[in-house]
Amino acid sequence: MSKKTMKAVVYKHTGTVALEERPLPGLMDSRDAVIKVTLTTICSSDIHIKHGAVPRAIPGTILGHEFVGIVDQVGNDVKRFKPGDRVAVNVETFCGECFFCKRGYVNNCTDEHGGWALGCRIDGGQAEYVRVPFADNGITHIPDDVTDEDALFTGDILSTGYWGASLAEIKPADTVAVIGAGPTGLCTLMCAGLYGPARVIAIDISDERLELAKKQGLADIILNPLKQDVVQEVLRLTEGRGADAVLEAAGGKDTFQTAWKIARPNAVVCVVAMYEEAQVIPLPDMYGKNLVFKTGGVDASCCGEIMELIRAGRLNTSCLITHRTTLEHIMEAYDIFENKKDHVIKYAVNIE
Amino acid sequence: MSKKTMKAVVYKHTGTVALEERPLPGLMDSRDAVIKVTLTTICSSDIHIKHGAVPRAIPGTILGHEFVGIVDQVGNDVKRFKPGDRVAVNVETFCGECFFCKRGYVNNCTDEHGGWALGCRIDGGQAEYVRVPFADNGITHIPDDVTDEDALFTGDILSTGYWGASLAEIKPADTVAVIGAGPTGLCTLMCAGLYGPARVIAIDISDERLELAKKQGLADIILNPLKQDVVQEVLRLTEGRGADAVLEAAGGKDTFQTAWKIARPNAVVCVVAMYEEAQVIPLPDMYGKNLVFKTGGVDASCCGEIMELIRAGRLNTSCLITHRTTLEHIMEAYDIFENKKDHVIKYAVNIE
Amino acid sequence: MSKKTMKAVVYKHTGTVALEERPLPGLMDSRDAVIKVTLTTICSSDIHIKHGAVPRAIPGTILGHEFVGIVDQVGNDVKRFKPGDRVAVNVETFCGECFFCKRGYVNNCTDEHGGWALGCRIDGGQAEYVRVPFADNGITHIPDDVTDEDALFTGDILSTGYWGASLAEIKPADTVAVIGAGPTGLCTLMCAGLYGPARVIAIDISDERLELAKKQGLADIILNPLKQDVVQEVLRLTEGRGADAVLEAAGGKDTFQTAWKIARPNAVVCVVAMYEEAQVIPLPDMYGKNLVFKTGGVDASCCGEIMELIRAGRLNTSCLITHRTTLEHIMEAYDIFENKKDHVIKYAVNIE
Amino acid sequence: MSKKTMKAVVYKHTGTVALEERPLPGLMDSRDAVIKVTLTTICSSDIHIKHGAVPRAIPGTILGHEFVGIVDQVGNDVKRFKPGDRVAVNVETFCGECFFCKRGYVNNCTDEHGGWALGCRIDGGQAEYVRVPFADNGITHIPDDVTDEDALFTGDILSTGYWGASLAEIKPADTVAVIGAGPTGLCTLMCAGLYGPARVIAIDISDERLELAKKQGLADIILNPLKQDVVQEVLRLTEGRGADAVLEAAGGKDTFQTAWKIARPNAVVCVVAMYEEAQVIPLPDMYGKNLVFKTGGVDASCCGEIMELIRAGRLNTSCLITHRTTLEHIMEAYDIFENKKDHVIKYAVNIE
Repeated sequence: MSKKTMKAVVYKHTGTVALEERPLPGLMDSRDAVIKVTLTTICSSDIHIKHGAVPRAIPGTILGHEFVGIVDQVGNDVKRFKPGDRVAVNVETFCGECFFCKRGYVNNCTDEHGGWALGCRIDGGQAEYVRVPFADNGITHIPDDVTDEDALFTGDILSTGYWGASLAEIKPADTVAVIGAGPTGLCTLMCAGLYGPARVIAIDISDERLELAKKQGLADIILNPLKQDVVQEVLRLTEGRGADAVLEAAGGKDTFQTAWKIARPNAVVCVVAMYEEAQVIPLPDMYGKNLVFKTGGVDASCCGEIMELIRAGRLNTSCLITHRTTLEHIMEAYDIFENKKDHVIKYAVNIE
Repeated sequence: MSKKTMKAVVYKHTGTVALEERPLPGLMDSRDAVIKVTLTTICSSDIHIKHGAVPRAIPGTILGHEFVGIVDQVGNDVKRFKPGDRVAVNVETFCGECFFCKRGYVNNCTDEHGGWALGCRIDGGQAEYVRVPFADNGITHIPDDVTDEDALFTGDILSTGYWGASLAEIKPADTVAVIGAGPTGLCTLMCAGLYGPARVIAIDISDERLELAKKQGLADIILNPLKQDVVQEVLRLTEGRGADAVLEAAGGKDTFQTAWKIARPNAVVCVVAMYEEAQVIPLPDMYGKNLVFKTGGVDASCCGEIMELIRAGRLNTSCLITHRTTLEHIMEAYDIFENKKDHVIKYAVNIE
Repeated sequence: MSKKTMKAVVYKHTGTVALEERPLPGLMDSRDAVIKVTLTTICSSDIHIKHGAVPRAIPGTILGHEFVGIVDQVGNDVKRFKPGDRVAVNVETFCGECFFCKRGYVNNCTDEHGGWALGCRIDGGQAEYVRVPFADNGITHIPDDVTDEDALFTGDILSTGYWGASLAEIKPADTVAVIGAGPTGLCTLMCAGLYGPARVIAIDISDERLELAKKQGLADIILNPLKQDVVQEVLRLTEGRGADAVLEAAGGKDTFQTAWKIARPNAVVCVVAMYEEAQVIPLPDMYGKNLVFKTGGVDASCCGEIMELIRAGRLNTSCLITHRTTLEHIMEAYDIFENKKDHVIKYAVNIE
Repeated sequence: MSKKTMKAVVYKHTGTVALEERPLPGLMDSRDAVIKVTLTTICSSDIHIKHGAVPRAIPGTILGHEFVGIVDQVGNDVKRFKPGDRVAVNVETFCGECFFCKRGYVNNCTDEHGGWALGCRIDGGQAEYVRVPFADNGITHIPDDVTDEDALFTGDILSTGYWGASLAEIKPADTVAVIGAGPTGLCTLMCAGLYGPARVIAIDISDERLELAKKQGLADIILNPLKQDVVQEVLRLTEGRGADAVLEAAGGKDTFQTAWKIARPNAVVCVVAMYEEAQVIPLPDMYGKNLVFKTGGVDASCCGEIMELIRAGRLNTSCLITHRTTLEHIMEAYDIFENKKDHVIKYAVNIE
């Protein structure tokens, strides 16, 4: 590591991100690691940050919270990793010791650098190098038989889908409905399938994404609310009851209302999406339906399990990578991704 | 049963209930029982019905869904009861065989007479006699050492508190907050205590009810939002985290917002109260707090367990009965109960 | 139904079963159905009965507890079925109303005809017709797109595998070990796969059965204790920990000991097999390993879910049917099945 | 800490423990603490060690794994404690980071000093000072309003009762049976009561201990197998079903057999006791009873919760302390405790 600066995508201020030259990061704590990033991607949360819609995001921060790389340096108290290890990095860094971490609620880690910090409050991984706090907790070994592309989404959207599916209390033979077939929705469909449902329904306004979900075997049934009465259709498919579990991964204008309406009584409605606006929960209308709503953001504490499932071939996100580029050209990728041009789902951005 | 008519409280139309003479009920189905009511009470849901706020309520129906009595007649397919048995009657009647009943979700029984029907869609128990469908499911034996007054609330408000507490995922040593110290709130406090919490907090705007909760040992800490910043106080008591479980039994103007604010991240917020208006769920404000909301109306399928706990002395609702009268004078009781006069909590209405 | 007698396999006394002419059965209770059997099979439990190893089995009873057919007659209180319905029949008949049935523990139904009665204590389905008590609980509709052969094992061995897997607390990414790759073992492997394990290990002393499990995609890894140190091998595959869940479906001489030894600390060891002898549980040797043992016989209350999964293609037992014959030739089939000749796994026995 | 040696009870070899002068311990790792012991006790496991029945125990080790004290020194990486803090010490030391610790299975911590080490494999707390590894995980603050005596059993027997009760899946209104009313049994009875059972049954061969359990409100019913047919009596009390949960805290000759016999079908039988001999599990006899056996040794990861419950007055072990002495006289205490003289239950041994 003889060079002194590196390229990095910086969140300048609302409306502006830029590829800049920045100093190389170093270890700041004995539990830190510095990672040489080899493959990174752009997440819709990065677009939310650009739009000024993520209050915790600090201007001047390097973006990027979903990436893989090679361990470059480790602090003295890092036990599980050494330089040269190939790793996926977690969206969340967490201490592992506080009240919340001990219960698996790592998103609410009470440490200053706990929860979602990378690429938001501290410099992230759309850069050649990145410092990762609490490395033993927030980095996952990539086995030899898993490629960087295979592992790329482990730390964020795949963790989100995995977390959402785990919350949804899906039992074998259930009918599961997932609203949204974008990157997170596709990961959610995939993870819902781990629980043995008899039927997975994907709902989206893009036929293209729905077709992809069906073609990849992630959904048995696809519904487009622009063309169908989704509520009636779900009821029809379920003998009038509704879906046993609903995962809302779209965060659209009407999707919260659709979510509870397609749920059968006593179902879990899991809100995986990040909402930009408050919603109305019409308790009198749903009285007696006895729904359970689970809300929030990923507790990304299961990356080891996710990596095992990738290795076993039971999770496979290769269909998500529709575009590839390099860090030099990432601003063009931002444009295409933000504006959903060219049928993009996800980018794989190589860093030499 | 030589007489031909009986006294009964009838829901006439919005705004009017009246004590009238009505024909005696008889068996209509082989699974029915007819009960001679001995002790009944007035529930806040009766007041909701009077106000026209319960859409399913049918004018002309005899009110009453919380009462005890003696089995007078049983249909041929009733197996667990015989004339002369002393019983508590359940707010909900349910078939026991449909998709929902098999899963314990009896409130969503798909039978025409399933769910909350008594005193709402079919004649109830503010009367000398009442027909009860699915008697084997909706009636509970009262042991000899349990009085009628002890058993009076088994079928509705005590079931509601028991159901709410069971949903709240309370673990030993937890801090539980219950909003509302009225009849349902007191039952909820009592049932929350069954799960070994280290601390139960009662919240209400009535100091009198709070004091009762404390004096009865149902709450360790009492908070009045008219006098205290309840959110700050709960945070202060819990090292800044919030309550491990929150039960909302008030259904007031601000209580839904208070409920999620006093919950710690990853807590269960159980909405036991019946709301008359839709609420706002500010998903962006609570993002990352990862709350679970459980909503709806009681699944009253545990009356046997409740009766066991009453017999064992572990549930005791005697403090709720502040007033006693007879069916002849029930209209006066309605006035006092509806208008919260005379420090009333609950009435015990005797029927000779 | 103009004929008066039918062919049926009768358990005569220890050591002897015979194909005999028997009177046609009729309804005995309003909740009964009479089923015209179309396809039946032989189960290893039938062999246990023949050997006199099932104390509850009554000589003179018609055998058969795993079969499909067409509803011929129904009693007045049967609600879910009508003559002509194509159905799979459950090994267990149960009342649905007692303490145990309400909790899903249908194997312990307290009714006289509750639990495993068919083909053991009351006449079963290796016959042209059979009476089934509590028909609404013990019969499952077969959808049009599911064949009789597809549905044949629903009521017993597939229910057993499904029940075992549901008890084993398998989580996504787990390593599951199943001991035994016979008919029940194969069903267990298949059902374990519904829970998203990263790796399923099959253990048997028959390479042929192991190869079948692997070829069918039911096992990722196969181990033969005649050729390998199974305990060491499982530890090696799991970083020295042992399997996260163990299902013992063999009931062999050493298999109980193998089961707990290949389990990692704090694992669930689920004993699906029926044992003919008491076992030694070496508590001092396993002290601190903190194992959970789940024992017993199937609670076959999930046949509806199983049928959904068969229809969805997520459970497929076609690989189990290695032999086909007709009721006239069933005694020959008994010989082949009992003596494991001709690579038999399961028979499909047609009844015209 | 100017003195150089201290008094300590040393396990010399099978049959012999002795009060000796030993060097003062010091910090050996940055996560260690040194505790000045103020109050200690003798546990039946100490007697097992003396008898040579604990293979992992190393001769020459200072005994004692249940004690309270004051923090004297802490290593650089200890975050939660500082010198002067009053603390209870946990029987188990654990890293908090390994596969098992992350899942709460701290008894199986894979660290060299993980699991039960104190007073067994490394020097324990029947001494003036003791070194405690992984101090942040294995020490619990004692609040000001909790005395040393109140907190004395937090780390071992109370943790064991708490762990056993948490495993037993007790639900409100259940009937719970606890076999053994010695120190661990009394703690188990107390903790079972946290889950809202309708009825707790204590079983022991000592009427004196049973009477204590009843008098202290820990048991509703007491049974002595020397005087009663315990199995018949439990069945009689439970309408012929058996106990909903059974906790075996005696480890006697027949107690394992009694445990499963008094359990109702589908119950959890939790083996809290440490057995010196293998047991017979008669699977054929219990076939169809579908019991769950949970075995092993305490995962003492809930001392914070236990301390909360002590402070709240919901756990109170004062009735266990029948004898008090000082470290100088501990050998006399060993004699009385080992030989159950003088109605002893537990000793509180003061150390000035």
